[in-house]
Amino acid sequence: MKQKIIDPWGSGLLEDYGKIIKDFGLEIFNSKLFPEPNRIMRRGVVFAGRDLKIILDAIKSKKRYYVLSGIMPSNDKIHLGTKMVVEGIKYFQEHGAETYILIADLEAASTRGVTLGEARKRALDFHIPAYVALGLDVGKTIFYFQSENKEVMNNAYEFAKKITLNEFKAIYGSADPGKIMAAMAQVADILYPQFKERMPGIIPVGVDQDPHIRLTRDIVRRVKDRKFLLPSSLYHKYTPSLDGDIKMSKSKPESCIELPEDIKSVKKKIRNALSGGRDTLEEHRKLGAAVEKDMVFELMKQHLVEDDAELNKIYNDYKSGKMTSGELKEIACGKMEGFMNNFVKGIGQARKHIDRLNFVKFK
Amino acid sequence: MKQKIIDPWGSGLLEDYGKIIKDFGLEIFNSKLFPEPNRIMRRGVVFAGRDLKIILDAIKSKKRYYVLSGIMPSNDKIHLGTKMVVEGIKYFQEHGAETYILIADLEAASTRGVTLGEARKRALDFHIPAYVALGLDVGKTIFYFQSENKEVMNNAYEFAKKITLNEFKAIYGSADPGKIMAAMAQVADILYPQFKERMPGIIPVGVDQDPHIRLTRDIVRRVKDRKFLLPSSLYHKYTPSLDGDIKMSKSKPESCIELPEDIKSVKKKIRNALSGGRDTLEEHRKLGAAVEKDMVFELMKQHLVEDDAELNKIYNDYKSGKMTSGELKEIACGKMEGFMNNFVKGIGQARKHIDRLNFVKFK
Repeated sequence: MKQKIIDPWGSGLLEDYGKIIKDFGLEIFNSKLFPEPNRIMRRGVVFAGRDLKIILDAIKSKKRYYVLSGIMPSNDKIHLGTKMVVEGIKYFQEHGAETYILIADLEAASTRGVTLGEARKRALDFHIPAYVALGLDVGKTIFYFQSENKEVMNNAYEFAKKITLNEFKAIYGSADPGKIMAAMAQVADILYPQFKERMPGIIPVGVDQDPHIRLTRDIVRRVKDRKFLLPSSLYHKYTPSLDGDIKMSKSKPESCIELPEDIKSVKKKIRNALSGGRDTLEEHRKLGAAVEKDMVFELMKQHLVEDDAELNKIYNDYKSGKMTSGELKEIACGKMEGFMNNFVKGIGQARKHIDRLNFVKFK
Repeated sequence: MKQKIIDPWGSGLLEDYGKIIKDFGLEIFNSKLFPEPNRIMRRGVVFAGRDLKIILDAIKSKKRYYVLSGIMPSNDKIHLGTKMVVEGIKYFQEHGAETYILIADLEAASTRGVTLGEARKRALDFHIPAYVALGLDVGKTIFYFQSENKEVMNNAYEFAKKITLNEFKAIYGSADPGKIMAAMAQVADILYPQFKERMPGIIPVGVDQDPHIRLTRDIVRRVKDRKFLLPSSLYHKYTPSLDGDIKMSKSKPESCIELPEDIKSVKKKIRNALSGGRDTLEEHRKLGAAVEKDMVFELMKQHLVEDDAELNKIYNDYKSGKMTSGELKEIACGKMEGFMNNFVKGIGQARKHIDRLNFVKFK
């Protein structure tokens, strides 16, 4: 039973992630090795990484290392995948990492056509406050805007010489000028904390962001005259779409929860989500729920229930048929309402203190 | 006879340039329209342009306009084509243009792998002094390094969204990440003087640099929210290789004169150059020289003889057979020695005053 709680997401999807691990050459993530693993680490949502040992060593021996992530301010919502990234940052921040958050305004410009002014406004009004509301300790976080960071831009140009168009396409599947420029800036961002001093760094990402990690690692291997350490990375699974698809996506709004989103709308979506409940109550009581197919349980596991014992009880009650799908959904709705209220309130409070952020001052 | 002096370069090559004018959609350059046309304008070396009328109007009505060019500090020599670009800049500088010279250190990094530090050193030690030695008035010239110009870099990212990879390839023939990033920076450079105020600008280039002009003009047409004027451009022909090929190139060092170059080496190359002289003296006196095939005469026309009457006399003497190929070459050697001595001396003097340059101060 314990085994199943660790990853009750369904064997089909598990196989997909197994394939990703194999195809991308990732390491399987073992939460037992890390001190105080967080919720998504303990539950197999964080499932893989690259070069994790050097990070583990840095944590245990209290050596300098960094965690870095980027905010892409292309609109005024974030999704649950972003929440998992922030939880990853928070974990390493609490375990000694120097924390860097960059605002990818150049990427927003070159890939989405968002002006730098608009990107800046969105980042300050929403994205940074949202990260704070999700648990980032701003007092310990260094922020910068790509567009203000000459070193990042200059290095992006130097790194561009190290890769061919075909190599780029092999990594990203496609290429266009805006995407190439954004990717080169990302490489420079990922290495930015090492510009002054070589040190380990970890980048928590959704698995679809791995191309940036691979490109960066390829370039580090080719920049012979500067001794960067290969950046490490940590991968979380997607939060599945409420209709059961592998990834929640705005292209199917009825199966996608945005942050923030009106709670009435969210509750309606949760109530309509793909369920593991049986067709009749009688059958449900007899067979119990097919939990591995239940998207609401997955949502609770990934995002809504912090306590393992509580989640375990819900799992057992639902699996045994004691708890109905309707009851499970109402628990989820209640927890989601609490989360969303706190999130919105947290954003409001963080906005008031936006002037206290540690932005890198550039000459 | 006068007609032939205007362009005695040979009908074969003329046809090539006619094709370029047609294929690229250029305007034929008419030196008679411009006040005090310079040597290369008068002699048909400047042969085409884009949107020249707006520049002519600005000159005549003393309106604000700019001339802009870039220095690519990838090595410690320049070629005769660069000399012609500087002469183009000088012409417009003397006719009221605000003058911008950018150091394309990001391009040197992303396309040649030259570090920014090395690029800066070469620009200050050699390229800028060389431009001054060739006649640039530094007191009236605004300089900047691409790598210091955040506005240029930021705009390069915004502009990248406006073009697809296939469009880029159609303009440049090929694409790779370094080339794409360099090209986007060039577009931003070309428009930089218009960031604060819309105004006409002219970019004097060798015809092989036209892709940058086309890309910039395509992007200006797509940037609807910012009202840039389409930049104008001016094209000079190549200085032909001393063996008669259309373009002097370092890939054939025996037929290529670099600036600076040891005068003994240059004289040897001139003496070995493709000549329009006849096989025997008797034949030469009888038939006269085939001037249109003579690379040394072309060199004198493009670079070494300022005075039209003097060039005309040389042309007539040579064409009639009165002057031998050997005599022509010795005149060229003497003039080249004078030019090279002045050039080297000019560089030395300009280096002493490098601190007086007007570099844009960036925050």
